[in-house]
Parts: sequence; structure tokens; C-alpha cells
Amino acid sequence: MPAPLEFYFDYSSPYGYFAAMKIDDLAAKYGRAVNWKPILLGAVFKISGGAPLPTLPLKGPYALRDILRSARFYGVEYQQPSKFPVATQAPARAFYWVNTRDAALAKRLAQALYRAYFVADRDISSPEITADVAATLGLKRDDVLAALNDPAVKDLLKNEVDAAIKLGVFGSPYIVVDGEPFWGIDRFDQLERWLARGPF
Amino acid sequence: MPAPLEFYFDYSSPYGYFAAMKIDDLAAKYGRAVNWKPILLGAVFKISGGAPLPTLPLKGPYALRDILRSARFYGVEYQQPSKFPVATQAPARAFYWVNTRDAALAKRLAQALYRAYFVADRDISSPEITADVAATLGLKRDDVLAALNDPAVKDLLKNEVDAAIKLGVFGSPYIVVDGEPFWGIDRFDQLERWLARGPF
Repeated sequence: MPAPLEFYFDYSSPYGYFAAMKIDDLAAKYGRAVNWKPILLGAVFKISGGAPLPTLPLKGPYALRDILRSARFYGVEYQQPSKFPVATQAPARAFYWVNTRDAALAKRLAQALYRAYFVADRDISSPEITADVAATLGLKRDDVLAALNDPAVKDLLKNEVDAAIKLGVFGSPYIVVDGEPFWGIDRFDQLERWLARGPF
Repeated sequence: MPAPLEFYFDYSSPYGYFAAMKIDDLAAKYGRAVNWKPILLGAVFKISGGAPLPTLPLKGPYALRDILRSARFYGVEYQQPSKFPVATQAPARAFYWVNTRDAALAKRLAQALYRAYFVADRDISSPEITADVAATLGLKRDDVLAALNDPAVKDLLKNEVDAAIKLGVFGSPYIVVDGEPFWGIDRFDQLERWLARGPF
């Protein structure tokens, strides 16, 4: 079995959301599993000097247009959230908490949280709303809220973000396969060639 | 005849170079012409807050790797120039000077200048080297050098850069078709869908 893909994403990243709806199918086509790793772009931007797309002159207005067009291009349902971007500690912590016990459930949670934010316009930066979304998958609301405040869960996320930065991750989505990094859903064409035919 | 594509690029942009080797064929497939418009990313970055890729923490090392891989992916000959990026006033002015008389020759000059920089590692920021490259296409070296210092030619370029910034151009390559902007050779898939089937 070839090595799994490492899939880094931020819950506030539209392109990360598009990738989250595609990556498992793409990887499975070539017999690969995918490890999902939510990160905090805010922490990354402190190192990289990056900034949220909408804040950038010239690039910001283009990005908002490109996001809507890309959603249609990739056939993914999308509605621009009224608050964008948002802090993503709550959904990311919820993910890692579930992931220690059930990686498949954690992925379903990740997709549900993405849809809550990018389709239903729910502010998933709120622990309450993250817990509401988790509850739709059968998780206990109070357990989720407790986990979001658990220092061990906070450390889990912090360690993953630190490790990602150390690895050079600077954006979302960011995929590493066989040591090779691919940034952006617009690198899925190159990623697929890599999966199909190996290094090029 | 549908409207031509507007193709903005900087001579120091590897992705602009890849696009320059592809865009006329792509447009012709759908009965479109292409207007080429070299710009100065340095001037754009003063407005947009952008910066040359190699200078960016985390993103810079990735970019250098992505450029080499993208060259192989797109099947375009490429060698990382020893000086990168460079100022591109000389090649851009040479282009506009030729373009007023012969748009087809100007495109061949643009491609020759790109190959000189990104294949033969010649520093096209130098007027002398830009003139050498132009001479290989039958242009007179002294005429080129005179044009590069001609205030009217300088104004031509300045006006094109100002117009591009006013339009929102912030990167290279940047293509506008039917009023719709596409940034990056990694949007050629979306650009092609637009050309084939119209707005989406």
C-alpha cells in the first residue's frame, strides 16, 4: 500500500473546502488513503507574512470572484459567508478530538463543518455552533464543548499547527505526497499526474 | 469574430512565460485572437502589496520547486535564471515599440526574450541583451537601443501599466476575456471552459 496523502486545510479557506469535497475520491482512485490535518492559517500567516485574501488590494476583489467561479467550476455548492474569514480553533479542535478515536467520523465532521460555514452561513468560529454541527453526527453536544476547552485537545491542535509550519505548510489546501508538496486545488492536476505516474 | 483575449504578463514571471508558450494556441482553438500586454510587476506590487515569490518566507522555497515542476508538467523548457527576478523595463519597452508596427513580430520577440531569460539564462534587464535578442529577429540593434531610451516608448509602457493597474491586474499571467479575469496559468482550465461554453 503506497503512503497516504497528508491533507492540510483551514476551515475558513474556500479552496480548502473545495479540496475537502474531492480529495478522498481522487486519492482512492490511485489506492491511496488521506490523513486530514486542519491547521490555523492565522498562525501560519504570522510566519509567512501572508494575509487573508479579502484584505489584499487588487487581489482581494479578484479572489472573491474567483472563489464563486471556482465553486461552479468544481461543482461544489457554495455561498459566500457573511463573516469571512473567521477564527477556526473550535472546528479544528473538534476535529482532532474526534480523530483520535474515529478518523472516518472526523472526516465526516470536517465536511459537515465546512458545509455549515460555506453553504449554510453558520459561524463555526463559535464553539456552540461547532457543537451543534457535531451533534448532527451523533456526538454529544456537552462532550464537544468540554473537549474544546480541554488543554490536551488544545495542545493536539497546537502541535499539529507547529509541525505543519515546520514542514513549510503556508496555505490551504496543501497536500504532501511521498514528500512532494502541492499547494492549492489548482494543483490537483499535477497531484493526479503524480499519483498516476509517480515523480515527474 | 468574438472579442480578443487580453494577456498581461511580466518578463520576469515564470508562469507568464509558460502562459506565453500556450495562450495563442488555446485562444485560436476557439476562434479568438490575443492582445499581448507586458507589464511591470514591480509597479503593481507597490499598489497591491505583493512581493517577488523568492522573497516570501515558506512560500518562496515552495514556489521555486513548483516552477520547476510546472515547467515539466506543461512541457516547457526551463532553467532557473541565476538572477531572479530582474527589472523588465527593457524587454517591455522593446515589445511595445515593435507592437505599434507589427503585432505578430512583437509576439515572436516576446517569446524570444522569455526564452533568452528562462532557457539561456541571459539577463534581459540589460538593454544591450534585449537588443541582442531583438537582432536575432532581424531588428536593428541600434534602433532597438534608441527606442528603449525614447520618451514616447517609455510613455507607451507607463500608460499600459497604469491602465492594467486601474483594471485590477495584480499578477502574471493575467488574462481578461469578455470582461472576465483569470489569474495564473492554473486558471487555463477555467479559461478554456469559458472559451468553449461561455460564462459559467
